[in-house]
Amino acid sequence: MVNISGFYEAIGNIKKNRPLIHHMTNYVVANMTANFTLAMKASPIMATSIDEVAEITKFADVLVLNIGTISVEQFEAMKVAAKIMKRRNKKIVLDPVGVGISKLRCNVVEYFIKEHIVDVVKGNYSEIMTLSGLSAMSKGVDSLEGDIALVNNALGQLSKKYNSVFAATGEVDIVNNGIEKQELKGGNIIMQYITGTGCLATAAVGVFLSVADPFNATVYGLYLLKKIANEIKAEGPAEFYSKFIDKIYKMF
Amino acid sequence: MVNISGFYEAIGNIKKNRPLIHHMTNYVVANMTANFTLAMKASPIMATSIDEVAEITKFADVLVLNIGTISVEQFEAMKVAAKIMKRRNKKIVLDPVGVGISKLRCNVVEYFIKEHIVDVVKGNYSEIMTLSGLSAMSKGVDSLEGDIALVNNALGQLSKKYNSVFAATGEVDIVNNGIEKQELKGGNIIMQYITGTGCLATAAVGVFLSVADPFNATVYGLYLLKKIANEIKAEGPAEFYSKFIDKIYKMF
Amino acid sequence: MVNISGFYEAIGNIKKNRPLIHHMTNYVVANMTANFTLAMKASPIMATSIDEVAEITKFADVLVLNIGTISVEQFEAMKVAAKIMKRRNKKIVLDPVGVGISKLRCNVVEYFIKEHIVDVVKGNYSEIMTLSGLSAMSKGVDSLEGDIALVNNALGQLSKKYNSVFAATGEVDIVNNGIEKQELKGGNIIMQYITGTGCLATAAVGVFLSVADPFNATVYGLYLLKKIANEIKAEGPAEFYSKFIDKIYKMF
Repeated sequence: MVNISGFYEAIGNIKKNRPLIHHMTNYVVANMTANFTLAMKASPIMATSIDEVAEITKFADVLVLNIGTISVEQFEAMKVAAKIMKRRNKKIVLDPVGVGISKLRCNVVEYFIKEHIVDVVKGNYSEIMTLSGLSAMSKGVDSLEGDIALVNNALGQLSKKYNSVFAATGEVDIVNNGIEKQELKGGNIIMQYITGTGCLATAAVGVFLSVADPFNATVYGLYLLKKIANEIKAEGPAEFYSKFIDKIYKMF
Repeated sequence: MVNISGFYEAIGNIKKNRPLIHHMTNYVVANMTANFTLAMKASPIMATSIDEVAEITKFADVLVLNIGTISVEQFEAMKVAAKIMKRRNKKIVLDPVGVGISKLRCNVVEYFIKEHIVDVVKGNYSEIMTLSGLSAMSKGVDSLEGDIALVNNALGQLSKKYNSVFAATGEVDIVNNGIEKQELKGGNIIMQYITGTGCLATAAVGVFLSVADPFNATVYGLYLLKKIANEIKAEGPAEFYSKFIDKIYKMF
Repeated sequence: MVNISGFYEAIGNIKKNRPLIHHMTNYVVANMTANFTLAMKASPIMATSIDEVAEITKFADVLVLNIGTISVEQFEAMKVAAKIMKRRNKKIVLDPVGVGISKLRCNVVEYFIKEHIVDVVKGNYSEIMTLSGLSAMSKGVDSLEGDIALVNNALGQLSKKYNSVFAATGEVDIVNNGIEKQELKGGNIIMQYITGTGCLATAAVGVFLSVADPFNATVYGLYLLKKIANEIKAEGPAEFYSKFIDKIYKMF
């Protein structure tokens, strides 16, 4: 069970602290990620240029890395920012978007996981299966297939091997830190048809990382999306998304 | 007349196949293009970096090229992706956004048209007139002026010369493959006041290219936008756009 | 008091002229900036690549510079565009987003201000305080704190020293050209929770610069946002933003 009182306490602390979240994310979801972070009453900063990222990230409370439109140049900037955040003992969450579809994405994710640089890795089922080496390539970046037992197994191996929290989102979200495990049911199928909802889940984890340990921050972030998504009735993805942001805003 | 049963059959096949559409597009419309593609029940991938584009495009069913925020680097990445798609015998649609306003845009469009790399070129009236060499520069990228007879003439010349489908969007949309011609009336004037609706028309053509020949795919894509736009009543462009996406979602 | 008849006359002239506004802005707000410009019945062009910016800006009526996701490369492109606009005797407005958080941002803003290249500088309270050298770093880019008297003092010094219009947005917006001063009250606290509303204020100033002198254009642009924001009731930031765009559209 999710620790509901811990969840609401974390929300209270976010509202009090207004943490600065540094998103190094893909340009497709940058605007919605900033708005989502603001709706959670945190403060987003979206800088990605290697020309200034070292200076900016030293003000941040949490770093969110998302490889959705990665390039070699972006990878270099992410390395710089991540190094500074680790030195400052701040938390980092990684979204391995589409890992497996290019060598670059595999290299980026491997780098951040192997050096134990990131505290949380949150992908969808196919990304987590790809990371575990237990399955083939994912088709596109919005796949929701996969078998829960297999994913649980993959998460368990990954979290033990790399000593980080690993989470997989899908029909059932699963969080694993190598010792504890949490499954989250519910949600709304329509979120498959809105680009970047997986990126928002990672952003939510990032905001909670400013006030909770990696395992609980990941559970709270994913629980937030499931909970809100359950409550919404909409004609389609556009109306759904508008109500989603406004409900997050009201809750925080 | 549009082949209505062919149109609905194509929609059925898109829903069945969930084609992977690789969009190499401008960053202004990337988010809306991904959401529009998802609303059509296809799967978008938005990768544009030359560091990984060769690997990614080999999974794609259709490639959509849009030069709205082109750079020399983006042109190189587009050439790489287009070459792979041709070798795989997959379809490509090009949106020559703002062609004529810079030498780079002219060079990019000339390259893709002359080598017969793209199967469909879809611009607005001024872009098509610029391509035909029959008129001067366009003012901005949202111009809707132009004379239908002139545009018809331009499309006929272009499609014969380059042996591709050429289409012009405006008050009346026109599709020409050098032999057949199709005019589409209707639509909603408010779409002029929403950025990227021309880009969405090109994206729609891209999705239909996964299940229909270039001429019919272009007609179906443009017909879809006209048809949906006709049905919507809205206070302004924001409400219009939200309803537009939700109607597309419901139709597919 | 705002010159209300001047304001409506300016709107009438924008609708008549449909000015072409060249936005060199950050990728986070590019889409909303284009839509906002269209809602004001002006024509946006969003080109930022140094490979074509010199050709494109020569068609523009106004240049809007926004450093929200600046890089060295973008700075170079902005210099090229600004030089051409000055030679053509066209107006330029600068949004010094997050100035103070990196040396690059400080250098960029200093360059454009010192050479008297820009006609208007519009920041939030903390950005203006940073520019004046009267305060420390801003925390993030959405800060609304600051003391009105201090900001007034900073604006007065800046506008006299650099002989340009300087404006600060916050709970009270303030415009100063070194001689005249205008304060604007009102607005809606929810705009703090929508990314890019400061960028839209700058875009509004940019559109009005096509038909009014720098001081009045700045007052009209900021007044427009305050006025519209006052009229809207919404459940949250998403509904607010949708209504905001549609009200702008109806007004123009």
